[in-house]
Amino acid sequence: MNTKRICDYGITVGELPTGLLNKISDVPGVTVGHYTLDNDRHKTGVTVILPAQDNLFSDKMTAAVHVINGFGKTCGTVQVNELGTLETPIALTNTLNVGKVADALVGWTLERCRRENIGCFSVNPVVGETNDCGLNDIADRALGEAEVYAAIENACADFEEGDVGAGKGTSCFGLKGGIGSASRLVNLDGQNYTVGVLVQSNFGRTADLMIDGRPVGERIAAKIRKEQAQTDKGSIMIVLGTDIPLSELQLGRVLRRVPVGLARTGSFIGHGSGDVAIGFTTANRHRPDSGAFRPMQALDDRHIDRVFRAAAEAVEESVLNSMTAADRVTGYNGNVKRSLNEFLPECL
Amino acid sequence: MNTKRICDYGITVGELPTGLLNKISDVPGVTVGHYTLDNDRHKTGVTVILPAQDNLFSDKMTAAVHVINGFGKTCGTVQVNELGTLETPIALTNTLNVGKVADALVGWTLERCRRENIGCFSVNPVVGETNDCGLNDIADRALGEAEVYAAIENACADFEEGDVGAGKGTSCFGLKGGIGSASRLVNLDGQNYTVGVLVQSNFGRTADLMIDGRPVGERIAAKIRKEQAQTDKGSIMIVLGTDIPLSELQLGRVLRRVPVGLARTGSFIGHGSGDVAIGFTTANRHRPDSGAFRPMQALDDRHIDRVFRAAAEAVEESVLNSMTAADRVTGYNGNVKRSLNEFLPECL
Amino acid sequence: MNTKRICDYGITVGELPTGLLNKISDVPGVTVGHYTLDNDRHKTGVTVILPAQDNLFSDKMTAAVHVINGFGKTCGTVQVNELGTLETPIALTNTLNVGKVADALVGWTLERCRRENIGCFSVNPVVGETNDCGLNDIADRALGEAEVYAAIENACADFEEGDVGAGKGTSCFGLKGGIGSASRLVNLDGQNYTVGVLVQSNFGRTADLMIDGRPVGERIAAKIRKEQAQTDKGSIMIVLGTDIPLSELQLGRVLRRVPVGLARTGSFIGHGSGDVAIGFTTANRHRPDSGAFRPMQALDDRHIDRVFRAAAEAVEESVLNSMTAADRVTGYNGNVKRSLNEFLPECL
Amino acid sequence: MNTKRICDYGITVGELPTGLLNKISDVPGVTVGHYTLDNDRHKTGVTVILPAQDNLFSDKMTAAVHVINGFGKTCGTVQVNELGTLETPIALTNTLNVGKVADALVGWTLERCRRENIGCFSVNPVVGETNDCGLNDIADRALGEAEVYAAIENACADFEEGDVGAGKGTSCFGLKGGIGSASRLVNLDGQNYTVGVLVQSNFGRTADLMIDGRPVGERIAAKIRKEQAQTDKGSIMIVLGTDIPLSELQLGRVLRRVPVGLARTGSFIGHGSGDVAIGFTTANRHRPDSGAFRPMQALDDRHIDRVFRAAAEAVEESVLNSMTAADRVTGYNGNVKRSLNEFLPECL
Repeated sequence: MNTKRICDYGITVGELPTGLLNKISDVPGVTVGHYTLDNDRHKTGVTVILPAQDNLFSDKMTAAVHVINGFGKTCGTVQVNELGTLETPIALTNTLNVGKVADALVGWTLERCRRENIGCFSVNPVVGETNDCGLNDIADRALGEAEVYAAIENACADFEEGDVGAGKGTSCFGLKGGIGSASRLVNLDGQNYTVGVLVQSNFGRTADLMIDGRPVGERIAAKIRKEQAQTDKGSIMIVLGTDIPLSELQLGRVLRRVPVGLARTGSFIGHGSGDVAIGFTTANRHRPDSGAFRPMQALDDRHIDRVFRAAAEAVEESVLNSMTAADRVTGYNGNVKRSLNEFLPECL
Repeated sequence: MNTKRICDYGITVGELPTGLLNKISDVPGVTVGHYTLDNDRHKTGVTVILPAQDNLFSDKMTAAVHVINGFGKTCGTVQVNELGTLETPIALTNTLNVGKVADALVGWTLERCRRENIGCFSVNPVVGETNDCGLNDIADRALGEAEVYAAIENACADFEEGDVGAGKGTSCFGLKGGIGSASRLVNLDGQNYTVGVLVQSNFGRTADLMIDGRPVGERIAAKIRKEQAQTDKGSIMIVLGTDIPLSELQLGRVLRRVPVGLARTGSFIGHGSGDVAIGFTTANRHRPDSGAFRPMQALDDRHIDRVFRAAAEAVEESVLNSMTAADRVTGYNGNVKRSLNEFLPECL
Repeated sequence: MNTKRICDYGITVGELPTGLLNKISDVPGVTVGHYTLDNDRHKTGVTVILPAQDNLFSDKMTAAVHVINGFGKTCGTVQVNELGTLETPIALTNTLNVGKVADALVGWTLERCRRENIGCFSVNPVVGETNDCGLNDIADRALGEAEVYAAIENACADFEEGDVGAGKGTSCFGLKGGIGSASRLVNLDGQNYTVGVLVQSNFGRTADLMIDGRPVGERIAAKIRKEQAQTDKGSIMIVLGTDIPLSELQLGRVLRRVPVGLARTGSFIGHGSGDVAIGFTTANRHRPDSGAFRPMQALDDRHIDRVFRAAAEAVEESVLNSMTAADRVTGYNGNVKRSLNEFLPECL
Repeated sequence: MNTKRICDYGITVGELPTGLLNKISDVPGVTVGHYTLDNDRHKTGVTVILPAQDNLFSDKMTAAVHVINGFGKTCGTVQVNELGTLETPIALTNTLNVGKVADALVGWTLERCRRENIGCFSVNPVVGETNDCGLNDIADRALGEAEVYAAIENACADFEEGDVGAGKGTSCFGLKGGIGSASRLVNLDGQNYTVGVLVQSNFGRTADLMIDGRPVGERIAAKIRKEQAQTDKGSIMIVLGTDIPLSELQLGRVLRRVPVGLARTGSFIGHGSGDVAIGFTTANRHRPDSGAFRPMQALDDRHIDRVFRAAAEAVEESVLNSMTAADRVTGYNGNVKRSLNEFLPECL
């Protein structure tokens, strides 16, 4: 893990301006925390995205899920799509650890509600995953309550990227992947709003990597001779947050532009890649009150194209940042995933 | 066509109060018009539901579609589901006439917009259908622009039911079906709101007909010996309108309760039955104005169960009304569909 | 828990013949096991449906999921819908225990694969749930690996129904619900095939209960004065198995007839009821072999109506059996859920 | 319309080999016909894709639809998705002409069935569209039965691309778009299979056009100063055919890779762009016969990644071919859409 980002190589992704940190945490209220498990046997972890600092269970957040390719174990999607609400933080981890991490999120939510005197007999934990078995002894399910709590406690706005948290053991385009983030600003009615994205990248074949339209992957593949990733296995989890007032329908439409960003990095959305996008807006909270109706705001559709573009650009840059921020990692089994930085800028 | 309704037999469907007319037109602003083509060769027609009297194209209406069983030719669903809006009246007709009726709706909308100086280069006509080939020489596609315009001009609140308009040639549970309607009141924050339903019924096997839980169909089938409809062919179109403020997501959820009402009349949602529900709310109109955001209201989900119940009850009663209001009809081919009234009240 | 079934009251649901046991295990190869946790604090458990006795992970089963109302925490649905395959047994439990039970299913699958020398680095556990907090101290998440393993070991064809396993603490129509099952035979090309259903029932308002079209619930509600369940909270999980060769698309269509069976018992598919149907066919297994193509068989659609009817009938009867087989249960909090048998046959 | 293709500029899209013609008609049995209406007032037409030369109505074809962005009027999708079958040729035309073209397809199918003594009382015409009102006086709906019949009669394997048929009046990236096609070969079990694509391109902003990763659009936009297309209006219809045996589920998954190809040309899948993909496989025909079961073949999922890649590559190349084959067209209103060829090779 380092602090290098794709813009440090002079690459500007897209045309829209970025937020201050160029991270999902540019959306006011959003923080991200990691717990990294890094020992001889394990290269894995948990990353938690907190869409707000107050209680999501009592004041639910408008949310949506879009399954791009459903070869994955993400849990919580059924309820998010039915009700259009999110009631827990979003946790990312490795494939086999979803059950334990989901249980920990349930425990954390029950405890918080008990502390705040909020009745809570049903919780819908949202947990995404990618498979880090290339570097991590995944059968262990080594992450439990303590690790999830630690990730939540570590949450902050200026969080780390690369081979940390749920990105410790992942691979992207045959190189080291991990956690990456980016953001874009959209001006609406004279005010700046933010679209932020965070990814856990773990997909792609080396030769397919594209950076700003350049066939960087082909050049790297030529250098390393034997391609490290023959098939597009793995997966990518995409979390998108925004403060733009959107209806659930509109949020779902924004998520359906995520594949544009993925395709621009070289993804073909492989069969083995569980690609799932989870989105929320911090506007339109479901505040419990006495009336029968809940006021909300939707975006006039004439302006939604800029939100679509913001989403696609932030996804593309997040994937690239997940790679530049990742250092070389050697797995429990001796497998090595090299850092993209070892090939830049010469392969650009 | 007569004016008998299932309540005239002492049957009360469900527990919620009905609106004044107990028709979809109890939703303020909604009217319905028929054009019936009834000659030696044709027993068919067009029924048009006008969700509002002003221009739907310029001030779009919040809408949703739920496909219960998609063996049908309904057009316009793709855009309604993507944008959550309806921009034309909803027309019902016979299966093979959808293209011509859709074209007529396009023409009507272009003309109205031209008259009102509204630019219009794209129109999404919504046309539903069921197959009346049991009584009607359907290959003809006998309904065109004149018939659609006439149906629209005929629109009123206290419209007729039974073997009229798009219901002239349909069959239901082996008897004569047609157009039926019903409504339910839901009190929210001290104010009465309406859920209205209109169906074009054309499905079911005689022996399966249930009225208020009673196996009326079995009794009728025993009388007519040879069941008239061996398989559940045909289809049912369901149009649901309300003035309750709902988000597109919530409107879709309400439509997913339509099968409850169908099942209570004896439907198994047969393979050959194209069962499609189209819903709109007259609240949350998309008024074109200058701002980037559109205020809307959603229902607090704690109250939505009553809307679900209202939808199911109104669907059940609409199907039964479509049958009691229909007289016996003899088709171009000599086929006879008898009226349910011929068997009531003795089979109850 | 007792062995009473709705047919013991002279009620015949539907018209199709039942299988030998009239349970999901009439589908050859299917077994069901329970683990019941019944102490002062807990009325809960795990029920596991084993679609086959050989290894589902290596020889995946054709499967589908249909979400009727997604206010629920079922996990594993994303992958089942993407790939059309099931690779673990299906476990049912209480709402907050999904994470731990999913983790246990992962562990069980890893262990079995290790024993059989099958590489396994990714598992998609399918776990359904309903909320038994009316009788059970649900916050505990008391069910883990030992309990899931025990349920699997207990699996047999002639399994118990009622207040056992995942049905120990559930309520249905304000009375005691639980596990119920039923089956139907469909003759195709001269051979009998089976459609089997198992439900975990936990939904409905007393006054809405219908048995064979009779308003039994109203009669019971009149007796118990104060209705026990004011709103349709709770949920129902429906597992459907068959040996009829179906494509994934067809299996999904069969599952979309499940609401018909629910509606016939009186359900309005309430907002708070997470109603999810999971289906599999034991035909069309994905056997790993060397060729690029996998032969399969689909049903000619002209015959699918009987499968739809079988599904709806078996769902309706399963719900009723889940109630007749359940004894009165008193919860950790003093709540009492009475048995339907206390009101039969006099309320019929 | 000319015969230039993107490969004539030395651009190789992707890595898979192309079929003989590098058109959708490389799939055995597939032909394409155009009718072009080119006069002072109209720049529009009809393009018909015939998936087979025998009767699709009696021997239905396995098919699927994927709606990428549903701001469009495509009809026939409901039934294709429910049954997984296609029973008419696929016609493409302009937005407002869908109704009349659908009616013509119905008439053509009825006539053919009558001639072949096949009972036909229900037809599901599949008609796609994009909006050519930038060059064409679209309000006219100038295309009817004669034009559709002519397009069908013109069908052949070596059909024209560019500003012909339904592509006569469309625009792509602010330049002239139209009909484009491409194909890819996939070797499975030692045999070559084909994935073919045809598009009607009518989307995109000039500055966004990418060719083989190069920002060609930015260079063109700089030359023409004022961008011609400010927003991504328009739409793209994508028809994908293959002879690879796929299940309906798998065909749908292949279609979900279409956005990858679009994104590689520079699309952000704009709000105003109705992007709909329709796919069919010439394997797994539904032949009517006497048995209850229909044998079919599915692809082993381990091989499906190459089909995904083939789909994405063919879509990308089809879009580019639709532009290189199109000549400059001046609309009825004086609008001019220039040909991409006017800027190549210098902007590459």
